[in-house]
Amino acid sequence: MATQDNYRVDVLTSRFDKALREFLREAVPALGGIADELAPLGQTTEAFVLDGGKRLRPQFCYWGYRATAAGDSEDIIRAAAALELLQACALVHDDVIDGSDTRRGQPAVHRRFAALHRSSGWYGDPERFGEAAAILLGDLALIWADSALTRSGFDAAALQRAAPVWDAMRVEVMCGQYLDVVEQARGGGSVERALRVARFKSAKYTIERPLHLGAALGAGEPELTRAFTSYGLPLGEAFQLRDDVLGVYGDPDVTGKPAGDDLREGKRTVLIAFAFDSANEAQAEQLRTRLGDPQLDADGVTVLRDIIAATGAVDRVEGLIATQADEAVRALEATDMDDAARTALVDLARSATTRSR
Amino acid sequence: MATQDNYRVDVLTSRFDKALREFLREAVPALGGIADELAPLGQTTEAFVLDGGKRLRPQFCYWGYRATAAGDSEDIIRAAAALELLQACALVHDDVIDGSDTRRGQPAVHRRFAALHRSSGWYGDPERFGEAAAILLGDLALIWADSALTRSGFDAAALQRAAPVWDAMRVEVMCGQYLDVVEQARGGGSVERALRVARFKSAKYTIERPLHLGAALGAGEPELTRAFTSYGLPLGEAFQLRDDVLGVYGDPDVTGKPAGDDLREGKRTVLIAFAFDSANEAQAEQLRTRLGDPQLDADGVTVLRDIIAATGAVDRVEGLIATQADEAVRALEATDMDDAARTALVDLARSATTRSR
Repeated sequence: MATQDNYRVDVLTSRFDKALREFLREAVPALGGIADELAPLGQTTEAFVLDGGKRLRPQFCYWGYRATAAGDSEDIIRAAAALELLQACALVHDDVIDGSDTRRGQPAVHRRFAALHRSSGWYGDPERFGEAAAILLGDLALIWADSALTRSGFDAAALQRAAPVWDAMRVEVMCGQYLDVVEQARGGGSVERALRVARFKSAKYTIERPLHLGAALGAGEPELTRAFTSYGLPLGEAFQLRDDVLGVYGDPDVTGKPAGDDLREGKRTVLIAFAFDSANEAQAEQLRTRLGDPQLDADGVTVLRDIIAATGAVDRVEGLIATQADEAVRALEATDMDDAARTALVDLARSATTRSR
Repeated sequence: MATQDNYRVDVLTSRFDKALREFLREAVPALGGIADELAPLGQTTEAFVLDGGKRLRPQFCYWGYRATAAGDSEDIIRAAAALELLQACALVHDDVIDGSDTRRGQPAVHRRFAALHRSSGWYGDPERFGEAAAILLGDLALIWADSALTRSGFDAAALQRAAPVWDAMRVEVMCGQYLDVVEQARGGGSVERALRVARFKSAKYTIERPLHLGAALGAGEPELTRAFTSYGLPLGEAFQLRDDVLGVYGDPDVTGKPAGDDLREGKRTVLIAFAFDSANEAQAEQLRTRLGDPQLDADGVTVLRDIIAATGAVDRVEGLIATQADEAVRALEATDMDDAARTALVDLARSATTRSR
């Protein structure tokens, strides 16, 4: 079966989903053994984890493992799927931090718990309750990510090889989030700092570390680990830049994110840093006034989109995406690895940077 | 050296502190390798973890290990100290959830980051920034807890024995927090439900699971694990009840918590459930009106303290503390274990239930 087929990605995705369902089928009812009131915590985590997501991190972890010439197994499927639980923690906490209303076209987790509070007629502020529940649900997902990896079926030696990567990956994603929050608070303005956030929040966390984790589980050579860095960092940057573009120009029906949310939030992305960098005085004034205005309406969104494009920022970002994706692919070509893995990783590089969601 | 001596507890405490300092001496500067802006995240975690705390969970973990007849070692000191990093996550997230201003007599972590935001002259709401940073700092502490245990020096087999306990413990503390939040939202009222929160938030998390973790690392027999449950659950309940009493009647200079904070927050503890349970109509009316009033002044605090005592709730709680502590000690006496460990655990039962902070 050729790995170029979309089918192959689909097959893996459904295997990751199955592994997650099986893990949660044990973990969620165990909460019921503690108290009935915990049911919404378990069910919401389950719904969040199983409902969509591109399963990109598990794909990279899986192919990082296969690149070591290790064969396909349910162990690597389970270990790779654990990354989705870590991602659930990152997203749920991120939505609390950003005060986001929706995620993947559904109400954000803290909004769902605020609704539970309202419908239960409880005391206090529903929004505060929702945030409290979402903080704890994110913690639970972070803990479960660890359990899922530990119980994936790999032996103690493989898990010990994986531990430093697993630790680094988890620390880096939280640090990336913090740098992002600081960057928003500073009001952005530096292309260099925006790229650094992209590097830690996405390049390392989404691509490089999942590949390293797979390689460590498969006892890959140091040369392979280095190649994954040379592939993962530019590709991850390109991936995040695609995200930036979709956040402003994406189709809400496809992305699941309301149009203009990134603009209303005033998100300090590389795209926005480029726009400021190339704007004339009138454009810069418009950007300063409108970016981060929570009341920005559809017309305001259109005006901002046009200005950002007019500065040339979109072209610069698209150029950077293409260059970085090429650099990533070249790093693979120069490295000795399993052929099926190489083909799959070239395909992933293409789909991660040309996607529309 | 007799374990009855306070000295012994002090020695252990300073060994735990040393292990934490050594772990953080590597972990905190590693953040600087990512970005200078991460320094406050690392330094605040370090200050929080090293500044005080009773180190109760590490003590129980240590003696759970020694009870298996395993000898003293730096490995068990490092593994036990990891519990303080988990506790840091629980406390920092708890303070965000409760909107607490202080912890251990210092500004709460989210307040410290709000102050950083203000002094940096950044954009946006300092309080929101503070909460975001505290959520991420808590996540980081939760991840570091795991790293600290993994790198404690125990071999893969010991860590594999410990994994199910470590997983259960982490899940239980988050579930206990959630049940607590739900209980506050419901406005409390049930002695049974308040006791259940105490069981998960404190009895299992503070005492039973740390003992189990130590026993698992030391390859203890199932009989020992069962004895630790019979000791840990009643003692943990007594420990939490002491906390409830200190939260209302404690000396702020000793507890580090402002007088009356639990009353202003309207915390639904077992003490309060007893008070409602035994109150006459006039007393119940006063409790309903004043409990949870954020504006409650010193006079209001005194009135509430007097009413709670007048209902007989304090006597009932003190009676329960004594009964539960006795039950805990009897469970130890009936079990075959290392004598030094038994003596230390009897001492810990006494100090955990008669403490003034």
